[in-house]
Formats: sequence, structure tokens, C-alpha cells
Amino acid sequence: MTGSRIDALAARLSPVLDAAGLRRDPAIDAHRSADATGIAGAVPPLVIRPRTTAEVSAALAACHALGQPVVVQGGLTGLAGGARPAEGEVALSLDRMAAIEPPDADAASILVEAGATLEAVQRRAEAAGLRVGVDIGARGSCTIGGNIATNAGGIRVLRYGMFRAQVAGLEVVLADGTVLSALAGLAKDNAGYDLKQLFIGSEGTLGVVTRARLHLHPAPGSDALALCAVPDLATAIALLRDLRARLGPSLSAFEAIWGGLYDAVQALDGGTPPLPSGAALYLLVEVQAGDAAAELEAALAGALEAGLVGDAVLGRTAREIAALWHLREGFNRHAARFGPAAGFDVSVRLDAMEAFVAAAAGRVRAADPDAVPYLFGHLGDGNLHYIVRTRAEAAVADAVYRSIAEVGGSISAEHGIGFDKKPYLGLSRSPAEIAVMRRLKAALDPKAILNRGRVFDA
Amino acid sequence: MTGSRIDALAARLSPVLDAAGLRRDPAIDAHRSADATGIAGAVPPLVIRPRTTAEVSAALAACHALGQPVVVQGGLTGLAGGARPAEGEVALSLDRMAAIEPPDADAASILVEAGATLEAVQRRAEAAGLRVGVDIGARGSCTIGGNIATNAGGIRVLRYGMFRAQVAGLEVVLADGTVLSALAGLAKDNAGYDLKQLFIGSEGTLGVVTRARLHLHPAPGSDALALCAVPDLATAIALLRDLRARLGPSLSAFEAIWGGLYDAVQALDGGTPPLPSGAALYLLVEVQAGDAAAELEAALAGALEAGLVGDAVLGRTAREIAALWHLREGFNRHAARFGPAAGFDVSVRLDAMEAFVAAAAGRVRAADPDAVPYLFGHLGDGNLHYIVRTRAEAAVADAVYRSIAEVGGSISAEHGIGFDKKPYLGLSRSPAEIAVMRRLKAALDPKAILNRGRVFDA
Repeated sequence: MTGSRIDALAARLSPVLDAAGLRRDPAIDAHRSADATGIAGAVPPLVIRPRTTAEVSAALAACHALGQPVVVQGGLTGLAGGARPAEGEVALSLDRMAAIEPPDADAASILVEAGATLEAVQRRAEAAGLRVGVDIGARGSCTIGGNIATNAGGIRVLRYGMFRAQVAGLEVVLADGTVLSALAGLAKDNAGYDLKQLFIGSEGTLGVVTRARLHLHPAPGSDALALCAVPDLATAIALLRDLRARLGPSLSAFEAIWGGLYDAVQALDGGTPPLPSGAALYLLVEVQAGDAAAELEAALAGALEAGLVGDAVLGRTAREIAALWHLREGFNRHAARFGPAAGFDVSVRLDAMEAFVAAAAGRVRAADPDAVPYLFGHLGDGNLHYIVRTRAEAAVADAVYRSIAEVGGSISAEHGIGFDKKPYLGLSRSPAEIAVMRRLKAALDPKAILNRGRVFDA
Repeated sequence: MTGSRIDALAARLSPVLDAAGLRRDPAIDAHRSADATGIAGAVPPLVIRPRTTAEVSAALAACHALGQPVVVQGGLTGLAGGARPAEGEVALSLDRMAAIEPPDADAASILVEAGATLEAVQRRAEAAGLRVGVDIGARGSCTIGGNIATNAGGIRVLRYGMFRAQVAGLEVVLADGTVLSALAGLAKDNAGYDLKQLFIGSEGTLGVVTRARLHLHPAPGSDALALCAVPDLATAIALLRDLRARLGPSLSAFEAIWGGLYDAVQALDGGTPPLPSGAALYLLVEVQAGDAAAELEAALAGALEAGLVGDAVLGRTAREIAALWHLREGFNRHAARFGPAAGFDVSVRLDAMEAFVAAAAGRVRAADPDAVPYLFGHLGDGNLHYIVRTRAEAAVADAVYRSIAEVGGSISAEHGIGFDKKPYLGLSRSPAEIAVMRRLKAALDPKAILNRGRVFDA
């Protein structure tokens, strides 16, 4: 049954696509069965690789007509299983649509195809003296289409916003092949509903991103980075508030590493740590401005006087700055050596963060007395990466998610829901909200062929 | 028929609402028939004035059950007829839901009810050393609910974004009374679709905003404002690009007044103009920064050296700054004395603006040889207020809108579509886009009771 539907689909699409555009060779495409979670999915029986929006439209129209489920794939760097194929799904890959137009310097924007990697777009922007507002670790593999579908975040959301804020114009293809193209990228446009908002962060369940116009930002004159030690979370939050008032938009990142993780990374890295161990939290404060080092130094001097910072070191040269950022990546570098772990990407209002951290620690300990939590993340955004070394993954997940729900936080700050966090969606969203998501899915993809079963059950 | 439905509705709601919450007195509510366009609508046979979200929900559930159309009203400052009642519509006014909670300084946000005026919220934010990102002329009467429903813009979009960018959390009531409440205001939250985006800028056709959490911004250390004269539009755009690179996020406004309007306003105002007449455009450049005057002066010196500015005056004191902003409001002050006019609020990509201005001028002249166009607006956002002194309003509208469509611009940058611009929506949106808007309307308001007939015909 499925086999004959795949035959019918291939027959319908072979006149539209070239030889490389339609592939039924598991030997070549086995890698498309898994994403960055490492969990194995099914190998798709057919991989569709269009070169143009018209080809995406033709492919989806055919799938829609046949009721054939489709998984949409970009760089396969997702952490929630959104692009991991389910049994019987054909894969629609944007890997052949990776063109990037020259940046438009007047409008400070750039028009790209969905399959372009974030890093390739960053390079083109930088060559024109401009910057993409979002940067994430997977930059070399993740694609703009995936960034938009998952509303990627990262380190400088504090200043530039999530990926949603970078999208000036968008072209998407709906499940039935309808093309919605709005790529002018007008800064102000209140002519009817802003449809692009619907597709950003909906994880490919409502439409397939084919092209986008992204806002670019002027390159800052300079960057500066400091590492500060603080005695507790309350002081860290007070420092954030103080620096925000002093630095305004020059404050571009405010990252936290909890003491336990800092010490563990130092033990693995060896050498002399930039600040002595023993503090409750270590904060990375980044400034982007005309004279960033001077602004950061003045702001920290003020914070020191206000009693909000104990010890601090300032990175001035590119090398010193890189060494401090290297610390921030400590967990990722050593993840394998931390042993079996359960990882969470949660978001909490700052005024509830202490309560959350205390409650989660208690529940995690109760679930597994041997568990060790390692915390770091984008404190300026209320976004914590909460990693627990444990073998009791399910009980620990329950402990962390229950603690998040209790304070009205989000079970997924950046990574999305996909398949893997779907069981917990109800902890962050009400039945009414999930019902409206279903209504929207039914309105735009009535046969539920696109990324079926991700986020919620349609 | 309509009368008996109103009776049935009143009977159903009178146990739920207090005496002031349900009013059938045209003598009191006659003013609710018109908005800021001055065009008279119908006097609503019943005005519903809830005090709580639960009351809004009960009112809409009753209207939905009876198939009773509802017009949603905030401050009645709209310029597209969105809140102007059609015959037979009951009015739902948010005027009794105007509470404002104390700002949350850690999260830099504020929780407000939809009926609060923008100005009242601005004052509360300022008292806490914070700022609302959006400011518009109607601040004293317009409400936050209306600002959200129309995605209001204004002068500092360049730095802070449209109203969409200010909304951290939203509570809305759907046509059937369903309450969607997501007021936590998390900076990062990718747990399912971001439903609030759907309601921002949809002009009350998909749901009624009852409460919102708004992002606030640190108050800038200081403001500075300069008036510059430039010889042509191309130089104005080159200056924008130059200043954006020099000033980064410190550049907070970049407004233009075309020479013809500058001269006309000077003639009406009398006195010595801040810069001599004769330039093609006059630009207001605002900087918000620690030492705004120094940053602005340095940036203008650089631009002068690059040959992008001829003459410029800098406002340093609050009084000098106010005098320059007073110029910008010149058209509005003198509007009545300009005689019969047709006004447009259009948006164009900067690289197409010269082509648009030339094409529109030609077509307007052909439509009415006596027409005089006056141009001003938010040039930094590509948003022009294009006003034409003419008696041939329909022919002139056709001329301007045709010219906008030709360059892929928007027929409504800030003001929305409402009833009044609905005939032109197809010039900025494709049939596929309008069809998707209809699908969304049908999914969320299947009986089309909310602001029926605004934006598009459901």
C-alpha cells in the first residue's frame, strides 16, 4: 500500500524533477534517518530534492493529492526530533536550494534560499560590513529554513531577538502546493494579516520555507567580553538589571555558568582558571559598541561600586575573548565525559528562577540521589540549559518539567517540541491553546501530511 | 429580527454584567459611531462594557451563540474604519478594563489591560526609569488593545520595532468565548505555535485582546535631535545608510519632510525657519544614547565630510528639541488649512522609493492637474505619509495606489486596512494570501461575528 503510493508519487514527480531530485537509494540517504539527538528514525523510502520553489510546490501538491506524509529536512541539527523521519514518510530536503543574493546595503537585508547554511549567510553579510543577528553553535550545518521553522535563538537574543525578529520577508509553500511569497521585506506593512509569523517556529507543520529575506545589522565597532563571579543567583539577576540600565542596547549577551559546571570544566580542561573556583555563578557579559571595552569597563566599575560584582576579568583581544567563550562551550566539549545525562532547555521568568532552581534540585535529588545537575545558559533571556548526569532519565525529566510548570515557565525555550517533547507540551500550553493549534493545522494542512505528529497530534 | 436578537442578547448578558456594563442609550453612546476618520458609522443598538476577561468571554459566547456581529472598540483613534460600527453591530468596548500593574524591573516588562491608554502606560514605565518602545500622536486616547490589534508603529520603529515587537505576552478571547491566556512574557518560548502573533495586527477580526505584557526598555541617558537639509532623495537614503553604520542602535529616528511641505508649514507658522528653504528634503535625525549630543555631532561631522549633508542644526536642550519635533507635526497642525485632501500611508523599499515618488507624482498630476502632493514620514522605515490636496480623491487614490503596487510596496504601512482600504488590499496581497487569511478567519471565527467585513470579506 505504502509502496504503491511511493511508486505513484515517483511517477508523478519524475517529469518535474531531474535525476538528482528524486532518489530512492537508502545507501546514499541513510544519514537522513537521524538528527542531532542521535535517535534513529526510519530511512525515508523516497527523498525529494527540489531546485526551485515551483518544484517544491509540485512535490507538495502531489503528496497532498496522494495523502503522502512528508518530513521536511534542512541541516538535521534539530534537538527535538522534528526532522527525524517517521515510518513511511518521504523526505523533502532543501539541500539544493542554497543560493544567497548579495546583501542590500540600503535596506540592510539579504535574500536567501532555505537550504543555505547560517554560516554561509553570516559570511556574506560580514563581507558587506553587516551582521546576522542570530548565531548558534550549529551554524556550519543548520539551514536558514530550519532556523526559521524552529525560531532559533542563541547567545545574542538579548540584543537582536530570536530568529523571528530577523525575518523581514518569507516565502512558504503550503501542504497543497499553494505558494505564499512575501519577500519585499518592508519594515512596516499592515496590509492584512502578517502571515509569515504563522510559519516561524511552527516546526514545518504548517508550510515549507523556501526563501526568506533577513534583516541585517550594522557591524558593531568593537566587542568586549568580561567574566564575573557572583555569590548567588539573586545577585546575578540584580547585576543584569544594573547593566541593562547602564549599557542599554550595547549589552549584547549575558550568559551564566553555575559553579558546579565551571569547576567540572576547569578540572577537565586543566591549566589556570581565569577566575578562582568557589563562586555560585560565573557570568559572561558581552558588549558590542563603538568602544566596547571602555563601555564595559565603566559599567563593571559602576556595578562593582554597587556591590554587584566580586571578581571580574576583561577580555580585550580577540584571543582573550575567544578563551572566555571557550569556557561557555565547556559542557558541550566535555558532554561525552559527563556520562549518561538528561538535558533540558527551559525558560523561566527571572523573578521565578530561584524558586525553580531550588524546586528542581530537590525533585531531581528525590528522583535519583546520585544525580548531578549542571546548569548554564542564556540568563539574560531567562533561558537555562539544565543538564543532569543520571541514569534515571524519565524520573528526572518528570522532576524538571514539573518544576518548570509550577512557575509558569516553558518546557522548550529554543529547541522546539518535535516528537521528543510532545508528551510535555501540556505543561506549558493550555488545552485551549493546543486546540487552537489543531484548528490552524486543519485549516492549512487538512490531510496533515506535513511533519505529521510533531508538536501535537493533529 | 435584529431587534429581537438584541433583546435576546441583552437578556442573556444582564445577569452577567452590571448596569453600566450593558447600555442601550444612543444619547450616551452616539460618539461610538465614528472613529478618527470622521466618517459616520451606525450608532450601535447595544454597548457591552465588560470589567473582566471572564465578562468578555461571556459576552462573546452569547454573541457567537446568537450569530450577533460585534465591533470591538478601544480609543476610536483608528484611521481605516476598523472600529467604526456597521449597521446592526453591537459594540464591545474595553473602556472599563484599563488597569496597569506596576512594572517588573527585573524582566523589564509591564502587565496591562487592553483599555489602558498608551500614554498612561508610558507614564507608569517612565516612573520606573523604563520606556515603552512605541510612541504615536494619539497616545492620550489610543488604547493598548487597539495598538496591538493594529500593530501600531510611529517614530522610533527604526530602533524599537513596531508594536508587535513590544508584545511579550497576550491574552485574547476568541469569537466563541475561548480564552487564550499567555501572559508570562518569556523572552524565549518555543513550546508550540506562538499564537499571539496571529492576533497582533489582525484588526480585531480573529479575537479580542483583553490583557498584554509589554516589553519595556531602559531609558536612554539622553536624546539629541538634528535637522539636516539634503539636495535629493538619493542623498537622504545614502545618509541613512551612513548614519546607521556610524550610530548602530543609537540611531532612534530618521524622519523626512519634503521641501514643498517644509515651505508650506513655514509660511503658515511664520518666524525664522531653522534652516533656509530651497532644499529637496529636510531630515530629522534622533539619537538616544549615554551622550546623545556628542554621538550625533560626531556622526554628522563624518557625514558632512562624506558630502552627505549640506546644512544642519542640532537641538541640544529640551526646548530646542521640541521646536524641531514641532516642525515634523506641521502638516497635522495645519491640515484643515490645506483644504480638501486625500491621504495615504504607504511603505516602499528604499531602493524603489525614487521610482515610486516620480511615478506617483506623474499619475497624480494626470489625475488632477491642480493637485499638490505633500510628503513626509518615517523615511528610515520606508514609510511615507503621502498627502494630496485635491478634490479628485478617487482618481488620486488610484494614481497613488497603482504606483505603490508597481514597486511592490504596501498600501498600508501603519494604519491597517479596516473598511476603508479593503478595496485596495489586492494591490499588496496576492489572491493566495487573501485566501489563507479567509481560512484563518473561518478557523477562529466560523460565524464571522468579530469585526465582520474589515480587512477582507470573510
